[in-house]
Amino acid sequence: MKILAAIDSFKGSATSEQLNTAALSGILAQFPDIQVQSMPIADGGEGVLEVLAYQKNAIRKTSQTTDLLGRPLEVPYLLLGHRAVIESAKVIGLDLVEVSSETISRATTFGLGTVVKDAIQTGAQTIIVSLGGTGTSDGGQGFLKSLETTDLSGVTLIGASDVTNPYYGENGAATIFAAQKGATAAQITQLNARDTRFAQEMLMHRGIDLQKISGAGAAGGLGGAIALLGGQLTSGFDFIADLIQLEQAISDSDLILTGEGHLDHQSSQGKVVSGVAKLAKKYGKPCVALVGSRSDDLGELETDLTAAFSIQTGPIALADAINAETTLKNMAMTAQNVMRVFKSHQ
Amino acid sequence: MKILAAIDSFKGSATSEQLNTAALSGILAQFPDIQVQSMPIADGGEGVLEVLAYQKNAIRKTSQTTDLLGRPLEVPYLLLGHRAVIESAKVIGLDLVEVSSETISRATTFGLGTVVKDAIQTGAQTIIVSLGGTGTSDGGQGFLKSLETTDLSGVTLIGASDVTNPYYGENGAATIFAAQKGATAAQITQLNARDTRFAQEMLMHRGIDLQKISGAGAAGGLGGAIALLGGQLTSGFDFIADLIQLEQAISDSDLILTGEGHLDHQSSQGKVVSGVAKLAKKYGKPCVALVGSRSDDLGELETDLTAAFSIQTGPIALADAINAETTLKNMAMTAQNVMRVFKSHQ
Repeated sequence: MKILAAIDSFKGSATSEQLNTAALSGILAQFPDIQVQSMPIADGGEGVLEVLAYQKNAIRKTSQTTDLLGRPLEVPYLLLGHRAVIESAKVIGLDLVEVSSETISRATTFGLGTVVKDAIQTGAQTIIVSLGGTGTSDGGQGFLKSLETTDLSGVTLIGASDVTNPYYGENGAATIFAAQKGATAAQITQLNARDTRFAQEMLMHRGIDLQKISGAGAAGGLGGAIALLGGQLTSGFDFIADLIQLEQAISDSDLILTGEGHLDHQSSQGKVVSGVAKLAKKYGKPCVALVGSRSDDLGELETDLTAAFSIQTGPIALADAINAETTLKNMAMTAQNVMRVFKSHQ
Repeated sequence: MKILAAIDSFKGSATSEQLNTAALSGILAQFPDIQVQSMPIADGGEGVLEVLAYQKNAIRKTSQTTDLLGRPLEVPYLLLGHRAVIESAKVIGLDLVEVSSETISRATTFGLGTVVKDAIQTGAQTIIVSLGGTGTSDGGQGFLKSLETTDLSGVTLIGASDVTNPYYGENGAATIFAAQKGATAAQITQLNARDTRFAQEMLMHRGIDLQKISGAGAAGGLGGAIALLGGQLTSGFDFIADLIQLEQAISDSDLILTGEGHLDHQSSQGKVVSGVAKLAKKYGKPCVALVGSRSDDLGELETDLTAAFSIQTGPIALADAINAETTLKNMAMTAQNVMRVFKSHQ
């Protein structure tokens, strides 16, 4: 029997790799002969580099660049053969600033372009930029400016994100995401007007309709900038699943454990659980989600997943529950108990 | 496939029957073809009458008696064929008074004897008195006084309890249980001295050593009084399990669900979970406990049970968790998820 753990990080509590290890240790403590595999995982959001660093051919590089406020910053990125993976959140991340109307007015994607240039100089032919968790809403203007004079011929640029918002308008980057990045209502109107004008210019002069590109509004419009540079936008989860060969691992397993901090019908924290569950279903493999908390209504996840359990062992305050030690202990115990039920059916 | 639910009440939240029904409804909602059986259960503590009322031949009777403070009270008891079942807590229960040093000084088991006499007059040949949850510490003196002139020949008297304390001394009735019934330290010393003298008299004049009878200290010494009247003391859980034919039901099932409000290595709330788990183990049947909360260390329960899950779906305050509606909803969902894992292993 083989068990695969592919649990998303519990944000603010424990990493994907820690949670996988805890769950599988709990199982091995009771069933030492079971074969286990830990597959650290993430979607297009934060944690991408940490997860991909477990790949055998991963080489960690650094780039001297500037953050979203133009402050000097050294950031890591990864080389995987001829591919480079850059995590936007590490360069222009929302967590790098105390957001305010002042910071959002200055926040630029310029520094991300610097890292892309570094990766090209290192010889990368495919450059993947994960778009989640950014603090910018500059329509990707800084990124475009930064790469203005760079020769991108022979380079495949990919934006990885699970956001499908258009560039501007009522579902656009500014309207949907700028408030959480510090923008006032008046600023949102301004940003959206700027993005609208820019999209109209691009349609007129270059024949590219940003509004028709799903995900152009990701990372404050950075998705649109990538498209303008000839790049593609792809699902962050699919891209990572592909890189770590998740589908193969699932098809080789008898039971798959996944999870995230909070699970609901919108799978609000990301696409890991629904992505893993769908792949498991494709191969007819049982897939159990172990989560910090779950809502009663899981929507279509209810049929994609075999089961979903909270790891809490009783009433507990949220502040105590997110303690890393408590989380990992409860994950180990719950995974072991799930395994005990699974194995008990002869 | 057949599933048996035998879940103890979650004290202050939901009854055994409600919890069984919720768990089995959750399972049937997903697996309508599964055969299910609900077996309301209790140990020697409170809830005995409610549980046994589900027996086919149960006839509810009432008795006009007095409570532990001598106040008039009508109480129910059950006839099961030639047997009568009397729940002490209904007559002399701790919950019937606001305990204080004044109440414990007056609290008497006298009224319980009145109910026994009523049961004898109704024709009962075996009288079972469940001893849990009492507010008395009178050494059983009131009970003895009440039955002083009653002809008990041809009557089998049984005290059902899972307490094994002796009549007096450092592990005796007064020392261990009187404080929670309102006694001051000085009162405890007095009560213990009285019980000690009485036991010495009984040993001298009747040749009965109360101190050697396991459970003589149950219900404030009522256990000892039952023994002096020629009665037997037996395990409350075993007695009920026997009456409801639990062992037969377990041997006929493929999976047994049990549970209680809080599960720990002392199984603090009673003997239901450990009793059910041991019987399930005897027949090699998987047994899963669904509980309000569980401790990390379940002691020997860890090997008797297949698994133990809290029904909580995430961090929650205790006051919210014990809401009956929330408890039953979470019980249904958790039972269904356990069943989904169980069934997924082909």
